[in-house]
Amino acid sequence: MKQSVSLITLGVSDYRRAKAFYEALGWTPAMDVEETAFFQANGVVLALWSREKLAADIGLKDDGARWSGIALAHNVGSDAEVDQILDAARRSGAKVRDPAPTFYGGYAGYFTDPDGHVWEVAHNPGFGLADDGSVILPAG
Amino acid sequence: MKQSVSLITLGVSDYRRAKAFYEALGWTPAMDVEETAFFQANGVVLALWSREKLAADIGLKDDGARWSGIALAHNVGSDAEVDQILDAARRSGAKVRDPAPTFYGGYAGYFTDPDGHVWEVAHNPGFGLADDGSVILPAG
Repeated sequence: MKQSVSLITLGVSDYRRAKAFYEALGWTPAMDVEETAFFQANGVVLALWSREKLAADIGLKDDGARWSGIALAHNVGSDAEVDQILDAARRSGAKVRDPAPTFYGGYAGYFTDPDGHVWEVAHNPGFGLADDGSVILPAG
Repeated sequence: MKQSVSLITLGVSDYRRAKAFYEALGWTPAMDVEETAFFQANGVVLALWSREKLAADIGLKDDGARWSGIALAHNVGSDAEVDQILDAARRSGAKVRDPAPTFYGGYAGYFTDPDGHVWEVAHNPGFGLADDGSVILPAG
Protein backbone atom coordinates (compact mmCIF):
# COMPACT_ATOMS: atom_id res chain seq x y z
CA MET A 1 0.00 0.00 0.00
CA LYS A 2 1.42 3.32 -1.12
CA GLN A 3 1.58 6.19 1.40
CA SER A 4 -1.27 8.13 -0.10
CA VAL A 5 -4.67 9.50 0.82
CA SER A 6 -6.68 10.03 -2.34
CA LEU A 7 -9.95 11.38 -0.94
CA ILE A 8 -11.37 12.46 2.38
CA THR A 9 -15.14 12.05 2.47
CA LEU A 10 -16.98 13.96 5.16
CA GLY A 11 -20.37 12.46 5.91
CA VAL A 12 -22.93 15.26 6.23
CA SER A 13 -26.51 15.28 7.46
CA ASP A 14 -27.65 18.28 5.40
CA TYR A 15 -25.90 18.48 2.06
CA ARG A 16 -26.93 22.03 1.16
CA ARG A 17 -25.91 23.37 4.56
CA ALA A 18 -22.54 21.61 4.42
CA LYS A 19 -21.79 22.77 0.90
CA ALA A 20 -22.81 26.35 1.76
CA PHE A 21 -20.51 26.27 4.77
CA TYR A 22 -17.41 25.30 2.75
CA GLU A 23 -18.32 27.71 -0.04
CA ALA A 24 -18.58 30.52 2.53
CA LEU A 25 -15.00 29.68 3.52
CA GLY A 26 -13.94 30.14 -0.08
CA TRP A 27 -13.96 26.58 -1.39
CA THR A 28 -15.35 25.84 -4.88
CA PRO A 29 -16.26 22.31 -5.92
CA ALA A 30 -14.77 20.96 -9.15
CA MET A 31 -17.69 18.53 -9.41
CA ASP A 32 -21.15 18.64 -7.84
CA VAL A 33 -23.19 15.60 -8.85
CA GLU A 34 -26.10 13.85 -7.14
CA GLU A 35 -25.60 15.73 -3.86
CA THR A 36 -21.91 14.94 -3.77
CA ALA A 37 -19.39 17.76 -3.88
CA PHE A 38 -15.76 17.11 -4.79
CA PHE A 39 -13.21 19.80 -3.95
CA GLN A 40 -9.76 19.49 -5.53
CA ALA A 41 -7.22 20.31 -2.84
CA ASN A 42 -3.47 19.74 -2.59
CA GLY A 43 -3.23 16.24 -4.04
CA VAL A 44 -6.09 15.06 -1.91
CA VAL A 45 -9.75 15.53 -2.84
CA LEU A 46 -12.25 16.53 -0.16
CA ALA A 47 -15.76 15.20 -0.74
CA LEU A 48 -19.07 15.97 0.97
CA TRP A 49 -21.61 13.16 0.84
CA SER A 50 -24.68 12.04 2.75
CA ARG A 51 -23.62 10.56 6.06
CA GLU A 52 -26.47 8.05 5.76
CA LYS A 53 -25.42 6.92 2.28
CA LEU A 54 -21.78 6.74 3.32
CA ALA A 55 -22.64 4.54 6.30
CA ALA A 56 -24.74 2.28 4.09
CA ASP A 57 -21.96 2.08 1.52
CA ILE A 58 -19.44 1.09 4.18
CA GLY A 59 -21.95 -1.34 5.63
CA LEU A 60 -21.98 -0.04 9.17
CA LYS A 61 -24.57 1.18 11.61
CA ASP A 62 -24.43 4.92 12.15
CA ASP A 63 -25.13 5.86 15.74
CA GLY A 64 -25.29 9.54 14.88
CA ALA A 65 -22.89 12.40 14.88
CA ARG A 66 -20.37 12.84 17.59
CA TRP A 67 -16.66 13.50 17.63
CA SER A 68 -14.91 11.55 14.94
CA GLY A 69 -11.56 10.90 16.52
CA ILE A 70 -10.12 12.67 13.49
CA ALA A 71 -8.87 16.21 13.06
CA LEU A 72 -8.06 17.72 9.70
CA ALA A 73 -5.50 20.50 9.74
CA HIS A 74 -5.19 23.56 7.54
CA ASN A 75 -1.73 25.04 7.92
CA VAL A 76 -0.88 28.62 7.06
CA GLY A 77 2.18 30.83 7.12
CA SER A 78 1.40 33.30 9.91
CA ASP A 79 -0.48 33.79 13.16
CA ALA A 80 -2.55 36.52 11.48
CA GLU A 81 -3.86 34.06 8.88
CA VAL A 82 -4.90 31.68 11.68
CA ASP A 83 -6.94 34.49 13.24
CA GLN A 84 -8.50 35.49 9.91
CA ILE A 85 -9.61 31.97 9.00
CA LEU A 86 -11.07 31.25 12.42
CA ASP A 87 -12.96 34.55 12.30
CA ALA A 88 -14.36 33.61 8.88
CA ALA A 89 -15.34 30.16 10.19
CA ARG A 90 -17.11 31.74 13.15
CA ARG A 91 -19.02 34.09 10.85
CA SER A 92 -20.03 31.04 8.78
CA GLY A 93 -21.56 29.43 11.86
CA ALA A 94 -18.75 27.18 13.00
CA LYS A 95 -17.97 26.60 16.64
CA VAL A 96 -14.47 27.95 17.27
CA ARG A 97 -11.88 27.16 19.90
CA ASP A 98 -9.92 30.38 20.05
CA PRO A 99 -6.36 30.24 18.79
CA ALA A 100 -3.50 30.19 21.26
CA PRO A 101 0.24 29.45 21.31
CA THR A 102 0.94 25.71 21.02
CA PHE A 103 3.38 23.47 22.86
CA TYR A 104 5.47 23.14 19.68
CA GLY A 105 6.06 26.86 19.39
CA GLY A 106 3.29 27.57 16.93
CA TYR A 107 -0.15 29.14 17.06
CA ALA A 108 -3.38 27.26 16.43
CA GLY A 109 -7.09 27.07 17.02
CA TYR A 110 -9.92 24.82 15.89
CA PHE A 111 -13.26 25.12 14.22
CA THR A 112 -15.99 22.50 14.08
CA ASP A 113 -18.11 22.36 10.94
CA PRO A 114 -21.91 21.98 11.07
CA ASP A 115 -21.59 18.16 11.09
CA GLY A 116 -19.06 18.06 13.91
CA HIS A 117 -15.96 17.58 11.75
CA VAL A 118 -12.98 19.23 13.39
CA TRP A 119 -10.39 21.38 11.62
CA GLU A 120 -7.25 22.74 13.23
CA VAL A 121 -5.99 25.98 11.72
CA ALA A 122 -2.31 26.23 12.53
CA HIS A 123 0.86 28.16 12.00
CA ASN A 124 3.73 25.78 12.72
CA PRO A 125 7.12 27.42 12.10
CA GLY A 126 8.78 23.99 12.52
CA PHE A 127 7.16 22.54 9.39
CA GLY A 128 7.89 23.39 5.79
CA LEU A 129 4.82 24.69 3.97
CA ALA A 130 4.35 24.56 0.21
CA ASP A 131 2.40 27.21 -1.68
CA ASP A 132 -0.56 24.85 -2.01
CA GLY A 133 -0.78 24.36 1.78
CA SER A 134 0.99 20.99 1.85
CA VAL A 135 3.19 20.37 4.87
CA ILE A 136 6.69 19.20 3.98
CA LEU A 137 8.23 17.16 6.77
CA PRO A 138 11.97 17.20 7.35
CA ALA A 139 13.56 14.23 5.55
CA GLY A 140 13.81 11.23 7.84
CA MET B 1 -9.17 29.87 3.24
CA LYS B 2 -7.19 28.00 0.61
CA GLN B 3 -8.52 24.64 -0.63
CA SER B 4 -5.97 22.56 1.19
CA VAL B 5 -5.76 19.84 3.81
CA SER B 6 -2.31 19.92 5.39
CA LEU B 7 -2.57 17.07 7.91
CA ILE B 8 -5.02 14.35 8.85
CA THR B 9 -4.61 13.32 12.47
CA LEU B 10 -6.09 9.98 13.47
CA GLY B 11 -6.72 9.77 17.20
CA VAL B 12 -5.60 6.37 18.46
CA SER B 13 -6.12 4.58 21.76
CA ASP B 14 -2.96 2.44 21.59
CA TYR B 15 -0.11 4.22 19.85
CA ARG B 16 2.16 1.19 19.38
CA ARG B 17 -0.67 -0.92 17.98
CA ALA B 18 -1.75 1.83 15.58
CA LYS B 19 1.78 2.48 14.36
CA ALA B 20 2.43 -1.25 13.90
CA PHE B 21 -0.77 -1.55 11.88
CA TYR B 22 0.22 1.16 9.38
CA GLU B 23 3.80 -0.11 9.22
CA ALA B 24 2.48 -3.60 8.40
CA LEU B 25 0.66 -2.01 5.46
CA GLY B 26 3.95 -0.61 4.23
CA TRP B 27 3.90 2.93 5.63
CA THR B 28 7.09 4.42 7.13
CA PRO B 29 6.94 7.52 9.33
CA ALA B 30 9.18 10.45 8.43
CA MET B 31 9.04 11.59 12.07
CA ASP B 32 8.23 9.65 15.23
CA VAL B 33 8.42 11.90 18.28
CA GLU B 34 6.72 11.70 21.68
CA GLU B 35 4.30 8.99 20.54
CA THR B 36 3.31 10.92 17.47
CA ALA B 37 3.98 9.45 14.02
CA PHE B 38 3.98 11.65 10.94
CA PHE B 39 3.72 9.96 7.54
CA GLN B 40 4.47 12.06 4.47
CA ALA B 41 1.86 11.21 1.85
CA ASN B 42 0.81 12.93 -1.38
CA GLY B 43 0.85 16.54 -0.23
CA VAL B 44 -1.05 15.68 2.90
CA VAL B 45 0.61 14.36 6.07
CA LEU B 46 -1.09 11.56 8.01
CA ALA B 47 -0.42 11.68 11.76
CA LEU B 48 -1.16 9.19 14.52
CA TRP B 49 -1.59 10.73 17.96
CA SER B 50 -3.24 9.85 21.25
CA ARG B 51 -7.00 10.17 20.93
CA GLU B 52 -7.13 11.40 24.53
CA LYS B 53 -4.51 14.11 23.94
CA LEU B 54 -6.14 15.14 20.68
CA ALA B 55 -9.52 15.53 22.39
CA ALA B 56 -7.92 17.58 25.17
CA ASP B 57 -6.10 19.73 22.63
CA ILE B 58 -9.32 20.44 20.75
CA GLY B 59 -11.08 21.05 24.05
CA LEU B 60 -13.88 18.54 23.63
CA LYS B 61 -15.29 15.64 25.56
CA ASP B 62 -14.45 12.30 23.98
CA ASP B 63 -17.32 9.85 24.29
CA GLY B 64 -15.19 7.01 23.01
CA ALA B 65 -14.57 5.42 19.68
CA ARG B 66 -17.31 4.86 17.24
CA TRP B 67 -17.75 5.60 13.58
CA SER B 68 -16.28 8.94 12.71
CA GLY B 69 -18.52 10.06 9.91
CA ILE B 70 -15.35 10.24 7.83
CA ALA B 71 -13.93 7.86 5.29
CA LEU B 72 -10.43 8.18 3.88
CA ALA B 73 -9.91 6.70 0.44
CA HIS B 74 -6.87 5.09 -1.07
CA ASN B 75 -7.29 4.89 -4.84
CA VAL B 76 -5.38 2.49 -7.05
CA GLY B 77 -5.18 1.68 -10.73
CA SER B 78 -6.72 -1.79 -10.91
CA ASP B 79 -9.22 -4.15 -9.31
CA ALA B 80 -6.36 -6.54 -8.50
CA GLU B 81 -4.63 -3.89 -6.39
CA VAL B 82 -7.85 -3.33 -4.46
CA ASP B 83 -7.94 -7.05 -3.64
CA GLN B 84 -4.26 -7.14 -2.67
CA ILE B 85 -4.47 -4.19 -0.28
CA LEU B 86 -7.64 -5.43 1.40
CA ASP B 87 -6.03 -8.86 1.84
CA ALA B 88 -3.00 -7.22 3.44
CA ALA B 89 -5.24 -5.15 5.72
CA ARG B 90 -7.12 -8.28 6.78
CA ARG B 91 -3.84 -10.05 7.58
CA SER B 92 -2.85 -7.00 9.66
CA GLY B 93 -5.98 -7.39 11.76
CA ALA B 94 -8.31 -4.93 10.08
CA LYS B 95 -12.00 -5.59 9.66
CA VAL B 96 -12.70 -5.74 5.93
CA ARG B 97 -15.84 -5.19 3.90
CA ASP B 98 -15.16 -7.29 0.83
CA PRO B 99 -14.65 -5.41 -2.42
CA ALA B 100 -17.43 -5.33 -4.99
CA PRO B 101 -18.38 -3.40 -8.12
CA THR B 102 -19.57 0.14 -7.32
CA PHE B 103 -22.47 2.18 -8.63
CA TYR B 104 -20.01 4.44 -10.49
CA GLY B 105 -18.53 1.59 -12.50
CA GLY B 106 -15.53 0.99 -10.30
CA TYR B 107 -14.50 -1.61 -7.73
CA ALA B 108 -14.03 -0.91 -4.03
CA GLY B 109 -14.02 -2.28 -0.52
CA TYR B 110 -13.31 -0.92 2.93
CA PHE B 111 -11.09 -1.71 5.86
CA THR B 112 -11.44 -0.40 9.40
CA ASP B 113 -8.23 0.20 11.33
CA PRO B 114 -7.85 -0.87 14.98
CA ASP B 115 -9.26 2.48 16.17
CA GLY B 116 -12.32 2.35 13.96
CA HIS B 117 -11.04 4.71 11.25
CA VAL B 118 -12.47 3.71 7.89
CA TRP B 119 -10.51 3.50 4.62
CA GLU B 120 -12.05 2.82 1.25
CA VAL B 121 -9.72 1.10 -1.21
CA ALA B 122 -11.00 1.86 -4.68
CA HIS B 123 -10.37 1.57 -8.37
CA ASN B 124 -12.38 4.32 -10.06
CA PRO B 125 -11.80 4.37 -13.82
CA GLY B 126 -13.68 7.69 -14.01
CA PHE B 127 -11.05 9.58 -12.02
CA GLY B 128 -7.57 10.53 -13.09
CA LEU B 129 -4.91 9.05 -10.82
CA ALA B 130 -1.41 10.48 -10.40
CA ASP B 131 1.60 8.28 -9.69
CA ASP B 132 1.55 9.37 -6.05
CA GLY B 133 -2.04 8.21 -5.56
CA SER B 134 -3.60 11.67 -5.88
CA VAL B 135 -6.96 11.81 -7.58
CA ILE B 136 -7.16 14.38 -10.36
CA LEU B 137 -10.72 15.57 -10.93
CA PRO B 138 -11.86 16.64 -14.38
CA ALA B 139 -11.53 20.43 -14.72
CA GLY B 140 -14.76 22.17 -13.70
